Amino acid sequence: MGAIRTDAGAASASPDAHPFDAAIRLAPDGDNVFVGESSPAYGNMIGPYGGVIAATLLNAARLHPSRAGDPLALTVNFAGPLADGLFRVVARPARINRSTQHWHVELAQGDGIAATASAVFGARRETWSSTEAAFPAVPRADQVRPRARMPGSGVPAFIGRYEFREVYGGFPDFAKPSEAEDSGSCLWTRDDPPRPIDYLSLASLADIFYPRIYRRRGRWVPASTVTLTTYFHADGAALDRQGDRHVLGVARALRFGNGYADQTAEIWADDGTLLATSFQLVYFKE
Amino acid sequence: MGAIRTDAGAASASPDAHPFDAAIRLAPDGDNVFVGESSPAYGNMIGPYGGVIAATLLNAARLHPSRAGDPLALTVNFAGPLADGLFRVVARPARINRSTQHWHVELAQGDGIAATASAVFGARRETWSSTEAAFPAVPRADQVRPRARMPGSGVPAFIGRYEFREVYGGFPDFAKPSEAEDSGSCLWTRDDPPRPIDYLSLASLADIFYPRIYRRRGRWVPASTVTLTTYFHADGAALDRQGDRHVLGVARALRFGNGYADQTAEIWADDGTLLATSFQLVYFKE
Repeated sequence: MGAIRTDAGAASASPDAHPFDAAIRLAPDGDNVFVGESSPAYGNMIGPYGGVIAATLLNAARLHPSRAGDPLALTVNFAGPLADGLFRVVARPARINRSTQHWHVELAQGDGIAATASAVFGARRETWSSTEAAFPAVPRADQVRPRARMPGSGVPAFIGRYEFREVYGGFPDFAKPSEAEDSGSCLWTRDDPPRPIDYLSLASLADIFYPRIYRRRGRWVPASTVTLTTYFHADGAALDRQGDRHVLGVARALRFGNGYADQTAEIWADDGTLLATSFQLVYFKE
Repeated sequence: MGAIRTDAGAASASPDAHPFDAAIRLAPDGDNVFVGESSPAYGNMIGPYGGVIAATLLNAARLHPSRAGDPLALTVNFAGPLADGLFRVVARPARINRSTQHWHVELAQGDGIAATASAVFGARRETWSSTEAAFPAVPRADQVRPRARMPGSGVPAFIGRYEFREVYGGFPDFAKPSEAEDSGSCLWTRDDPPRPIDYLSLASLADIFYPRIYRRRGRWVPASTVTLTTYFHADGAALDRQGDRHVLGVARALRFGNGYADQTAEIWADDGTLLATSFQLVYFKE
């Protein structure tokens, strides 16, 4: 990777931008190339929160002048660590069809690729529709208490950028280790401060669940997402209806073993519209 | 795409090879490049069966001299049509870590990219394990009648390359259209003729289910897979135990709308080991 030109202003967010928009901001730096800078506001244990990396990769395809339509699917592969600082994103169309587009995106820092993605964009049109997944029977968001701020200096910054109203399967209390019978979690969540939802923040919310292995083992375990796939079921009208209110997230794992676990998740609008389904494979050391 | 060298024998299968191995065969054609030829034995309505395309892309990464470890995850994006004939596959490592590898693969024919893929390979090691997904209560494979050969000349060739013992949600009878309440299907299946299962055939089996929209609408609807993600949970021992016996496939959709539907699937060994989970987004015209 050559020298990064920083004159394009990728690093400086406008003072009134939402921190999420500041974190995923990209500045064009030639054909197919964008420059961004990781935001300490969304820091995780090591490097930025994966959801923001996913949204940044999606944003590169979205900003490309050849992009048409809305996101349908996104797969992000977390290939290596991303340090605080500048990075470069290359987004190029693998194929542009009449109604769908296939994009390949790579995020690099220094000499190494930190993440790759494929994104499918396309036109939505009205068709026969049916939702087979069931919206869970849960209390409304305003009836669920927000998770208290976690104590201690080791809490990743990104935790403060989301609101967590946990219906069940809340973040384990590592001071009182106890194994859970199943890996399921359900919560109302949204950006903090609130921000009207769009495909970018939805891509990030798909990764909002803590590793399922924490819940089954009842304690902290080294774990990190290897690959994350999200299908966007929402059309623009569904996102507009939702605005900045809480969405419902549901997640569980189907299988743990040989150092890897999966996670399957749903993100629902509060009117019962299924906004996205998401899947990830997680490395764990146990 | 430049001229394809055909002297490497990509096109000629050894006479005793299983048709699946013949279909996914690739010949090296320089650094990172392989040449293959679509096999009429696995033809679908247009071009080859998607499962074989997925397995071919995985095979390119597998055959690369830098590859280490076994497949953990595979995402295949079906970007455009693939005609009968020769094609070229480029597989390059996006990043090689100590225990995981991230690969990017592209399949091109003429000037166009027909499919892209990302594949994660890695080392499996023994850890704590748990399967939360439940093996369905179903009759054994030998207690379920194989689907009769479909009549008519329009049946895709690949249908003859698999055995379908349908437990529920069998292929709709288009002569008697009837809408189903849910999109679920369950079947015992394997290669025909039988072939010991490996990661390549498992990648192909993940796409064995007919489009869920057929079932809900009870009739044929134009439909094609846009993107397919498979997580390989099986280790080599589980595949060896399974051999060439029938695996159990379970699939359903969570959401249909705006011209797209998802599909979520599980592939189980007959001893109750979860071999793979798989997800796809499907275009439909309705």
